[in-house]
Amino acid sequence: MCGVFGIHGHDEAANIAYLGIHALQHRGQESAGLVACDGRMRRVAAMGLVSDTFNRDSLATLPGTTSVGHVRYSTAGSSELRNAQPLMFEYTGGSIAIAHNGNLVNALELRTELEREGSLFQTSSDTEVIVHLMAKASNPELLGRLQEGLTRVSGAYSLILCTADGTMIGARDPYGFRPLVLGRLKDSYVLSSETASFDLIEAEYIREIEPGEIVVIQNGGMTSHRHEQWAASLPASRFCVFEHVYFARPDSMLNGLSVYRARERMGRRLAQENPVDADVVIAVPDSGVPAAIGYANEAKIPFEMGLIRSHYVGRTFIEPQDSIRHFGVRLKLSPVRSVVDGKRVIVVDDSLVRGTTSRKIVKMLRAAGAREVHLRISAPPTTHPCFYGIDTPTRSELVAASHTIEEIARYVTCDTLGYLSHSGLLNAVKADQDKSYCSACFTGEYPLPLGVGAADRGGLVKLRLAKV
Amino acid sequence: MCGVFGIHGHDEAANIAYLGIHALQHRGQESAGLVACDGRMRRVAAMGLVSDTFNRDSLATLPGTTSVGHVRYSTAGSSELRNAQPLMFEYTGGSIAIAHNGNLVNALELRTELEREGSLFQTSSDTEVIVHLMAKASNPELLGRLQEGLTRVSGAYSLILCTADGTMIGARDPYGFRPLVLGRLKDSYVLSSETASFDLIEAEYIREIEPGEIVVIQNGGMTSHRHEQWAASLPASRFCVFEHVYFARPDSMLNGLSVYRARERMGRRLAQENPVDADVVIAVPDSGVPAAIGYANEAKIPFEMGLIRSHYVGRTFIEPQDSIRHFGVRLKLSPVRSVVDGKRVIVVDDSLVRGTTSRKIVKMLRAAGAREVHLRISAPPTTHPCFYGIDTPTRSELVAASHTIEEIARYVTCDTLGYLSHSGLLNAVKADQDKSYCSACFTGEYPLPLGVGAADRGGLVKLRLAKV
Amino acid sequence: MCGVFGIHGHDEAANIAYLGIHALQHRGQESAGLVACDGRMRRVAAMGLVSDTFNRDSLATLPGTTSVGHVRYSTAGSSELRNAQPLMFEYTGGSIAIAHNGNLVNALELRTELEREGSLFQTSSDTEVIVHLMAKASNPELLGRLQEGLTRVSGAYSLILCTADGTMIGARDPYGFRPLVLGRLKDSYVLSSETASFDLIEAEYIREIEPGEIVVIQNGGMTSHRHEQWAASLPASRFCVFEHVYFARPDSMLNGLSVYRARERMGRRLAQENPVDADVVIAVPDSGVPAAIGYANEAKIPFEMGLIRSHYVGRTFIEPQDSIRHFGVRLKLSPVRSVVDGKRVIVVDDSLVRGTTSRKIVKMLRAAGAREVHLRISAPPTTHPCFYGIDTPTRSELVAASHTIEEIARYVTCDTLGYLSHSGLLNAVKADQDKSYCSACFTGEYPLPLGVGAADRGGLVKLRLAKV
Amino acid sequence: MCGVFGIHGHDEAANIAYLGIHALQHRGQESAGLVACDGRMRRVAAMGLVSDTFNRDSLATLPGTTSVGHVRYSTAGSSELRNAQPLMFEYTGGSIAIAHNGNLVNALELRTELEREGSLFQTSSDTEVIVHLMAKASNPELLGRLQEGLTRVSGAYSLILCTADGTMIGARDPYGFRPLVLGRLKDSYVLSSETASFDLIEAEYIREIEPGEIVVIQNGGMTSHRHEQWAASLPASRFCVFEHVYFARPDSMLNGLSVYRARERMGRRLAQENPVDADVVIAVPDSGVPAAIGYANEAKIPFEMGLIRSHYVGRTFIEPQDSIRHFGVRLKLSPVRSVVDGKRVIVVDDSLVRGTTSRKIVKMLRAAGAREVHLRISAPPTTHPCFYGIDTPTRSELVAASHTIEEIARYVTCDTLGYLSHSGLLNAVKADQDKSYCSACFTGEYPLPLGVGAADRGGLVKLRLAKV
Repeated sequence: MCGVFGIHGHDEAANIAYLGIHALQHRGQESAGLVACDGRMRRVAAMGLVSDTFNRDSLATLPGTTSVGHVRYSTAGSSELRNAQPLMFEYTGGSIAIAHNGNLVNALELRTELEREGSLFQTSSDTEVIVHLMAKASNPELLGRLQEGLTRVSGAYSLILCTADGTMIGARDPYGFRPLVLGRLKDSYVLSSETASFDLIEAEYIREIEPGEIVVIQNGGMTSHRHEQWAASLPASRFCVFEHVYFARPDSMLNGLSVYRARERMGRRLAQENPVDADVVIAVPDSGVPAAIGYANEAKIPFEMGLIRSHYVGRTFIEPQDSIRHFGVRLKLSPVRSVVDGKRVIVVDDSLVRGTTSRKIVKMLRAAGAREVHLRISAPPTTHPCFYGIDTPTRSELVAASHTIEEIARYVTCDTLGYLSHSGLLNAVKADQDKSYCSACFTGEYPLPLGVGAADRGGLVKLRLAKV
Repeated sequence: MCGVFGIHGHDEAANIAYLGIHALQHRGQESAGLVACDGRMRRVAAMGLVSDTFNRDSLATLPGTTSVGHVRYSTAGSSELRNAQPLMFEYTGGSIAIAHNGNLVNALELRTELEREGSLFQTSSDTEVIVHLMAKASNPELLGRLQEGLTRVSGAYSLILCTADGTMIGARDPYGFRPLVLGRLKDSYVLSSETASFDLIEAEYIREIEPGEIVVIQNGGMTSHRHEQWAASLPASRFCVFEHVYFARPDSMLNGLSVYRARERMGRRLAQENPVDADVVIAVPDSGVPAAIGYANEAKIPFEMGLIRSHYVGRTFIEPQDSIRHFGVRLKLSPVRSVVDGKRVIVVDDSLVRGTTSRKIVKMLRAAGAREVHLRISAPPTTHPCFYGIDTPTRSELVAASHTIEEIARYVTCDTLGYLSHSGLLNAVKADQDKSYCSACFTGEYPLPLGVGAADRGGLVKLRLAKV
Repeated sequence: MCGVFGIHGHDEAANIAYLGIHALQHRGQESAGLVACDGRMRRVAAMGLVSDTFNRDSLATLPGTTSVGHVRYSTAGSSELRNAQPLMFEYTGGSIAIAHNGNLVNALELRTELEREGSLFQTSSDTEVIVHLMAKASNPELLGRLQEGLTRVSGAYSLILCTADGTMIGARDPYGFRPLVLGRLKDSYVLSSETASFDLIEAEYIREIEPGEIVVIQNGGMTSHRHEQWAASLPASRFCVFEHVYFARPDSMLNGLSVYRARERMGRRLAQENPVDADVVIAVPDSGVPAAIGYANEAKIPFEMGLIRSHYVGRTFIEPQDSIRHFGVRLKLSPVRSVVDGKRVIVVDDSLVRGTTSRKIVKMLRAAGAREVHLRISAPPTTHPCFYGIDTPTRSELVAASHTIEEIARYVTCDTLGYLSHSGLLNAVKADQDKSYCSACFTGEYPLPLGVGAADRGGLVKLRLAKV
Repeated sequence: MCGVFGIHGHDEAANIAYLGIHALQHRGQESAGLVACDGRMRRVAAMGLVSDTFNRDSLATLPGTTSVGHVRYSTAGSSELRNAQPLMFEYTGGSIAIAHNGNLVNALELRTELEREGSLFQTSSDTEVIVHLMAKASNPELLGRLQEGLTRVSGAYSLILCTADGTMIGARDPYGFRPLVLGRLKDSYVLSSETASFDLIEAEYIREIEPGEIVVIQNGGMTSHRHEQWAASLPASRFCVFEHVYFARPDSMLNGLSVYRARERMGRRLAQENPVDADVVIAVPDSGVPAAIGYANEAKIPFEMGLIRSHYVGRTFIEPQDSIRHFGVRLKLSPVRSVVDGKRVIVVDDSLVRGTTSRKIVKMLRAAGAREVHLRISAPPTTHPCFYGIDTPTRSELVAASHTIEEIARYVTCDTLGYLSHSGLLNAVKADQDKSYCSACFTGEYPLPLGVGAADRGGLVKLRLAKV
């Protein structure tokens, strides 16, 4: 769970990159960082939100026409400042910075090997492995070094690198797990995790970086290096279906699809698969809204905003000792009594992970007068953890890994519970031969074998889902 | 534009009051303050949001079983820390604190008179006048002093006062311009601007404080003093219709009505009065959503979330020098291209004040592919400033004060523009003999004559609408 | 314990006043504040040091050619932000600010009376009384109001007032307890507690404001109003001898004397009165150094820096749980073993209040090898609290109020203890008919009768001595 | 210019190390850092002072019984957070931290070589080179790795290292340029740059770490490895004479001598070599005081505190635009007019580097009335930059490198100028066959050949002297 953004060839590169990662803030709220290059490379990074990390003064310390930024919600590496990206290093080729969205599955083996050979590590991040491999590569050129490094690593990566002279590189793993899109802002090239950041800065969307592709942007020009040019055969792509279900912004286009429309189709299919007689359809905002609208339209039941979301949730909220029920959820979400009172309510959410939040929502709705509460999830049961960059709980915490739907319904105290089927989901995201997905979190079918890291090293694969 | 909250008789009074004003944060983001009483009175207040002003340490400095809080968006008095409420004073009766929502129309005359008699003022707030009048009252009792003071002031006020010994008083002006509701939290009495804060702390709603009523809560008991008991005849009440249109939370109950439902009815009436052939109805979130849903249902045109609102708008946002079009609006609102592209779009907002924001929204929607943009406002044209506590622009800035609907439509570049009629609005808020409203901002019919203050003293009646 | 500074007629008034109070920082570290006037009056004040309170941005909010500043270590009024000076009020004459060094002895009676007449107080400071009296004065002119007010108050005051139009007034009580000096900086007039602040800003010293004198500085000119012109007969002046003993900067000139030279003479007299055979004379730095040099020269025993003072004492110092002996003192003062090891040491300090610090110093010196430790205090025993503005402990905490010198010596564990006699002190400060002093803290002879406040209201006369 | 401190085997290791580096604050004010080890290694570091960097909360994040701290005033590596020490790395042996006082002269060659072999650098500090050499060493053991690394580096180093399991190592270069002392605090071993930090924490001084010695402290025990045991022959030691002249605390013992006494002897020799008829001897405080006392005693001229030093110099001081003369110096130092007015003044300082500060002091003293000003420097002319860890200007900025004493005297506008001779200095620090010094800054006789770094890379050898 991270967002990456880069711009090459703009007089206000750091300002633009700042806006770029601001538009990606939903992809990571733990740390934010920027590097900028004008012959020399400078870096500012901190724990916290983009708007708290940067101000006019700190942006002024980042001159140069190339800038790369990152927002992070840690998957690998613990929550420490030293892990904040972009990471910046000096090696025999000069200064280099790297921003990474995704997670490597063989990072631990490679790190052990590199340490044995005398490499010093400064972070606990899997990302650092890539740069060590580049530093030790036999090829003296930047692109060659990166290719040598990437042939060794396995896992999910959408990378943006840059060097002190302003060269910017984008790269995506052969499965294309994580998104990476290319755009133009006047004479500048931009790379980003999502198209929504192009909209904010008024850049034009060009295309997705292909799975396995490396693009080198230098002196205003771009060269592309498809995977088959520099590595072995390309596997079938496996774009993360969870980006469409929950993670990405609804106004982004991913894998050729509108995220909003995909979610609405999930809601429609969900209604077909799990109909129930009711008076009103409501959403768990904000991410559940498009699916709820889809469900309501399909079911021909009115959609209403029966839960509203607060814009002012502080980070260090104080709870009275004499505890308020469902306090954490209640701060974020408030039921609208006049919508649900005396009604049979269908509430649509996009995921049910541990069940604790859903349980609180159901109870709040009943306390606000709902006569029946029918919970509908616009995705299949989440049964397996993600090893490719989404911060999910371990299997033991995933309620659907060990409980039947009936058991879950009983736990969350809803009248009925319905999930979208896996085929319904694939249909909603228009999966076909040309557009294949990774849906391991719903099926356990992992496209890539897991390395020692995933199995042994809990610390590196810290697991939490940043939901309500 | 302020929110007030008070609790009497709770062991964690300041913690609860903190949550109370947090739930009222939408009513004022400029300053936040709390006082607490345990024989001695203590106060913490600062410019900024509730969650930035208070933390565990500062709340720990506020012991006592009575606490009163305030959030402020200044209408009278400039934006200085010294004007942050609750104001706290010492007078011959001891320590007293006051929190005020509303605006007095004769504050300046009274202040001039008081200064002439030797009173020192510490703030530029109209609220301070009330306490000076109390300090100089002939009646030695707290309630008598307040009644003496209130017979002198004219205007809108929903007040919460407290004294060092924990007595809490609620008072509402005879017109009942601003809301004030009463509730119970176990053995404690609570007062608040809106019922939404009762929901957060799990308090039970009892009733509204009546126009002209004063309630004195002391040693766990409450006495009520209706206006006719202590002052001249009571005028017809005039609850602010704009609270329903835009200002209050949708999950609050005000003047006996659900705000959400009132807005939905405005949308339905708007559809009846201003129909147009279109493909999709979207809202300007968040306040425009219920009316848009009402419009869509009435018009039988699908409702979609065609504009999404960011949760991460920082307070000191940096704009590139090479300016991005509609930057301010774009940071808060993003169009969803897949919803509007190629479509005839009806966009529903709850107000159009200067027209600049609406113009930006229309242009953003067209840039996202909208074929037609039909703007619908779920209220009548705003033609007059408010002198009773809503921070509106002066008449010269109110575009509807001097332009026809056609002119405004041309300015905001929409295809068609439709407002809700005044009678439609009154119908939506169920106005009748028992439930009368102030809608001076739409009609210019001010229920109370304006004092010198309103006419002469721009500084005291600073005017801005905190919309996008 | 406060410092006041004002400048009239300077383009960078707030910047200069900032430097002025910075040079007075030793007179108060609890809060710092500035007002500036350019027709309108603005104020910035905060708890803490001058250099922490102000920065380029906050000074930029203080335009105008007149500025008045204050540093405070509270004597009357508790340690709250609302008591930070200059206090600023609006009254019928407009905006007025006041900065006060000293303490009124009849503040409580006056306050009770004013509150009874309907005055509202915002602070717990005695200073506010003066401005209320001014607001209620019959005389319509500023000077007349001040004179009316000052004829009512009794106690110690060196005041600087200013109004929004830039008029600045200096006033000193008839006894002249606290210092107030007048200077010129090019075309500007400056007022300050001490000449040291003139040296920093390169202003020229003109003269002291006389006891009972009021100076009005307006439109670049100054008029003087001697006490006999506006009030009853002038008592003999009573400058605070403790300013010379401990409180003022050694590089200031006070009451016509160099503070440094006065302290050196105290040391010489101390040597004459309390000789002892020893190897080295050391000082408790910094304030004890001149007296120690005087002692050493008189006694013909070498002076050495046997105790050094740290420049880096942080405000929130963490002590290990397994406590270090004399931790607080040890952080500030370190013995130099090579100076004291094996020696008979005379250590000169300027006061011994509770005895706890002296005891720690004696023990530290012995631990560093001192064979004998002879403590010499360059002032008489402190036996009575101050009611005129120095923050001393209550009598019960003053060790010399209830113990003989022998008992004190035994407590602090020194070999011998000697104080300067009262006559020796008066001789050192050149007391004579023209130069009379208040030395009530050493004699109990208070020149002014104490009001109810001093006797009854501990809270108002909070007592602490900010020594090591 | 740095300070290092370490403790092994204490329950409150980080708290003690915090106090340890606080007592070394004079050795570096740019950054402060601590690591602590309890199996895992944690680190907190920031730009700024020790008391600003750490608080109870941040210290609580540093559990463990071994802790190492560092204060830094950069000599090599620019002023960036990433260079703040202790540096912390992970290598094949686990986590390791390093704190370094000194400067390597062949860091650049080694770094270039290491980068060529594929090492990634994270800092621009010379210190990182040592850990890379350790990571690539053939010896698998920690001590062996360090020995292999240290045989490659050349220059000045007093190092403290620690590993996650709590092992602590101290090491000093064969010349012993920088100090490193060993002590005991109950059952714990402590290492520090200066004995003054032992005094603060009440630790017992044991001995100096010998030049070329490595001590390994593990599981409560210590083993020593003298240079001859693990490397080639040991050169004659060369302790930095400037530590005695200016840098160390006067209450520290260094190289077997009291710093205070050494400075006093410098003052005595200075008086013998440069006598002048005068009325008073004053010091530039604080470091010049012992030499001034020595001078005064030898010359039999009274010593007085003619310059006083402020305790409240803020870090972001605002100067008026209409500039005050000698503003920077004037904030720190104030002349006492009553001491110097009309007098022939000898002012003793410990160094004269560029001459600008001395010039300001002379002018301030004359402005305060001094009839004659005789400047005496308790060290020889500084003619050469230091390459072993003292942050001196380049030769071109050292006024004594290119000007005669007469020219300097004319520039600083003193009546006479006298330096201590080199032989006088050596005599004062008791140099002999057993106690030899590096005084290259006064003689240009560098004990160690300079590497490419010193000659070519200004950036790595950034040069400034942190004097007034």
